[in-house]
Amino acid sequence: MKKTELLYEGKAKKVFKTDDENLLIVSYKDDATAFNGVKKGQIQEKGSINNRVSNYLMGLLEKEDIPTHIVEEVNDRETIVKKVEIVPLEVIVRNIAAGSLSKRLGLEEGTKLDKTVLEYCYKNDDLGDPMVNDYHIYSLSLATKEELELISSMSFKINNILSKYFASINIELIDFKIEFGRTSDGDIILADEISPDTCRFWDKTTGEKLDKDRFRRDLGNVEGAYQEILKRTLGNN
Amino acid sequence: MKKTELLYEGKAKKVFKTDDENLLIVSYKDDATAFNGVKKGQIQEKGSINNRVSNYLMGLLEKEDIPTHIVEEVNDRETIVKKVEIVPLEVIVRNIAAGSLSKRLGLEEGTKLDKTVLEYCYKNDDLGDPMVNDYHIYSLSLATKEELELISSMSFKINNILSKYFASINIELIDFKIEFGRTSDGDIILADEISPDTCRFWDKTTGEKLDKDRFRRDLGNVEGAYQEILKRTLGNN
Repeated sequence: MKKTELLYEGKAKKVFKTDDENLLIVSYKDDATAFNGVKKGQIQEKGSINNRVSNYLMGLLEKEDIPTHIVEEVNDRETIVKKVEIVPLEVIVRNIAAGSLSKRLGLEEGTKLDKTVLEYCYKNDDLGDPMVNDYHIYSLSLATKEELELISSMSFKINNILSKYFASINIELIDFKIEFGRTSDGDIILADEISPDTCRFWDKTTGEKLDKDRFRRDLGNVEGAYQEILKRTLGNN
Repeated sequence: MKKTELLYEGKAKKVFKTDDENLLIVSYKDDATAFNGVKKGQIQEKGSINNRVSNYLMGLLEKEDIPTHIVEEVNDRETIVKKVEIVPLEVIVRNIAAGSLSKRLGLEEGTKLDKTVLEYCYKNDDLGDPMVNDYHIYSLSLATKEELELISSMSFKINNILSKYFASINIELIDFKIEFGRTSDGDIILADEISPDTCRFWDKTTGEKLDKDRFRRDLGNVEGAYQEILKRTLGNN
């Protein structure tokens, strides 16, 4: 399969058309941005780490009957995925308070949440990805009620699977952001990526942050954290 | 019934204990604030207008089986109300985009919303009353699931009753903020106030704003707008 034209270039990925109209090739970049693009940098090998880690995690989810857009890993940086229409929502699942939630609700980072928190943000850079609720989503026609119910139940299930998996490699899954897409058949499937760019991972023993917060907050050893996640997930695979 | 000690002074009201431990007296002030207290001023006769208008509207709601905290109007500025524990949520109901919703979602003011939008904000001045969803509310134990379901269904019913009523006096009910309280019996009842301080009212013919936005946005004729709402609601009562 060959990349034909560049369809879209985002902050962390390029997406290419292919000679099959139902398939795209995603190419992961080393570029890192934070705070809606205000902070910019590069994280060495991030592209290949995120590609491989994300494909590995989506593979685990597929085995547990979560449909994803993954078709085949082409090389370290590139993956063939199903073409979908992205539902313009960032779906955020939180087990422990951190980041924007801590700030917004005045909860100290690391506070265990009594119940898992699900949040939706409207994917819109100009508006700064504002948080929205079900009523906003229906009112803006971002998703139907049926779609949103599916998205929410899949998100909780993904959280259960991933939390257990990460616990098994001594990592606490603090929170993560996922996106969903509509296939040409109208099915809702998991799209985008699951990686240290889109999750908060804390070492269960030391509490060390092993994710993009090292870049956002200038904590140092950013590359080391990404490499550690690669090592703990794919190991010698 | 006599006011005994001052229990609480808010931005627009004072609340006094009485010799009956289950009853309070609310005294409405002419003080006006906006933007979380950053803008301050006075609106002549606002206290007595809001007291009378709010009592009138809550009376309409009581007739339609919405329980409220109102017991008896004592005088133009003061009302005896049931003592409740306020549920720390601002419940916002929106029929037409305006204010913070317009800004947050990039919708022009005056855009009719396809479906009524309900929003919750966590009543917390230090945090700037952040928007929260059901999961945040449960996680912070602000209300139980049963309470929230009751609050949401009552809010939609209140919107239907008030929208129809205001249409009959040639006013479009754009949006409003209400608060609920728990009685000593654990019942959820409507509390706080419903007034030009807490609603957006637009004249249906001219589109003229007849609410606190005249103060927030320095539109002039602030007192006139409050007087107009008094006149259209209570008329010669």
